[in-house]
Amino acid sequence: MRIARFSHNDVPQYAFVQQDESDGRDYLVALDGFPFGAQPVKPTGDRYELDGEGIRLLSPVIPSKVYGLAKNYEAHAEFMHEHGHSDIAHAPEDMVIFMKPSTSVIGPDDPIVIPSYSHDMNFEPEVAVVIGRIAKNVPVEHAMEYVLGFTCVNDVTLRDLQGPDPMWTRAKGFDTACPLGPWIETELNWKDTKISFSLNGEDVPKASGTTAELIHGIPEQIAAISSFTTLLPGDVIMTGTPDASGHLDAGDEPVVHIEGIGSLRNVVVRE
Amino acid sequence: MRIARFSHNDVPQYAFVQQDESDGRDYLVALDGFPFGAQPVKPTGDRYELDGEGIRLLSPVIPSKVYGLAKNYEAHAEFMHEHGHSDIAHAPEDMVIFMKPSTSVIGPDDPIVIPSYSHDMNFEPEVAVVIGRIAKNVPVEHAMEYVLGFTCVNDVTLRDLQGPDPMWTRAKGFDTACPLGPWIETELNWKDTKISFSLNGEDVPKASGTTAELIHGIPEQIAAISSFTTLLPGDVIMTGTPDASGHLDAGDEPVVHIEGIGSLRNVVVRE
Repeated sequence: MRIARFSHNDVPQYAFVQQDESDGRDYLVALDGFPFGAQPVKPTGDRYELDGEGIRLLSPVIPSKVYGLAKNYEAHAEFMHEHGHSDIAHAPEDMVIFMKPSTSVIGPDDPIVIPSYSHDMNFEPEVAVVIGRIAKNVPVEHAMEYVLGFTCVNDVTLRDLQGPDPMWTRAKGFDTACPLGPWIETELNWKDTKISFSLNGEDVPKASGTTAELIHGIPEQIAAISSFTTLLPGDVIMTGTPDASGHLDAGDEPVVHIEGIGSLRNVVVRE
Repeated sequence: MRIARFSHNDVPQYAFVQQDESDGRDYLVALDGFPFGAQPVKPTGDRYELDGEGIRLLSPVIPSKVYGLAKNYEAHAEFMHEHGHSDIAHAPEDMVIFMKPSTSVIGPDDPIVIPSYSHDMNFEPEVAVVIGRIAKNVPVEHAMEYVLGFTCVNDVTLRDLQGPDPMWTRAKGFDTACPLGPWIETELNWKDTKISFSLNGEDVPKASGTTAELIHGIPEQIAAISSFTTLLPGDVIMTGTPDASGHLDAGDEPVVHIEGIGSLRNVVVRE
């Protein structure tokens, strides 16, 4: 099932995204509530074409916080080393976990804004896990029960700030650093789903990979993060970028594509 | 003016804290709204003794995020070096900014919980700035206009986790790592106010200092942080701990005291 948040004439609502068999097109089936709550949601009866007038997809969640894992694919750790961003050629044994604030989150088609003080903004396409239930001290074997679904994330990073900003608070937490969308897919072959990336309509094969290559798997990430913090419904875990990242300039159109979910497109502007 | 959040028989409300001249005691004057909003708040007519039955002070704000500055006093940078926690004897020239999530916030008298995997939890008494208006790209000379007031914070840190956890996400962001309170003081001599700390009733003179010794002052911190992120009403900036930090064990009662604000007491328990 696909859960989207959208606005219709600027009023935000949740919806299921459903294909109409008669015309083969995707529609937003508006819901009367919030799909993270205790009450079941039901359709309001309103239905909108996905690309209809006055319709805009929003970030599918407003997370209280977003956690991310650095160098969680061997190919990315090697890429970072080869490009002089890391002293070590291999991924660290322990998870390196960082955080982005709620204010960094934007939705599909929203502008990613390069701050005035940065000159090397990078893309990082990743699978994002959306938490569905309050999670604390969750064991690995029950971790997936706390997941509502999955969406695409671009873990946008100011590469030139990572050195001078040792906690990456500016480098990864600036406003617009966390594009999420286009919707939450509740059914996903999360053990082996393909991540790919295109820039201005051209595929960037070196940025692709599959979650089968994750060093720390998704249940292990949820267990580790929930061992120190309470994950709230809507919170997001960015699971890691599979291989190369790369430079983004004003005017660029980065698209994160995840097999079984869909595509997250944004535009880049300069502050 | 002192703004508190409290619960009366478990119902949370905001209040002004006011001294009654007839008996010299502090009372909670309950308010009908939220002191961060566009509408002015007014008293409901209910008044409670601060230590009355069924009354409990809560964290005065629920921040969307908490920013902190590491080594923002020369004495603390020297202390950390002397105690083997830092290779360099001096404070870094640039601000080192980190983040704590909303889920780490607790209120006065609440337990600080040592996670099972840590064996060196430390106290760090600090002045906390509470943001009152949405702040982005605020110039230094206007920064204080965005401040609602000040409260006490204990920037609790798992010292033994800071090495293995390079982003300090676990070390400073674990549940209960951010005790705030007892209330927000809107009037404070913030350029020179004394911070002190006591443990189990004994003053710890080596942990004290004054904001006059801050390396990066409060307006400079607000300007720098708002240059990359949008600060929301209720967001908190922890301005730095003045000198020594120290170990906390289960059963301990740490108290942060800030001249002109008051005292934030907590209790320490083990998970």
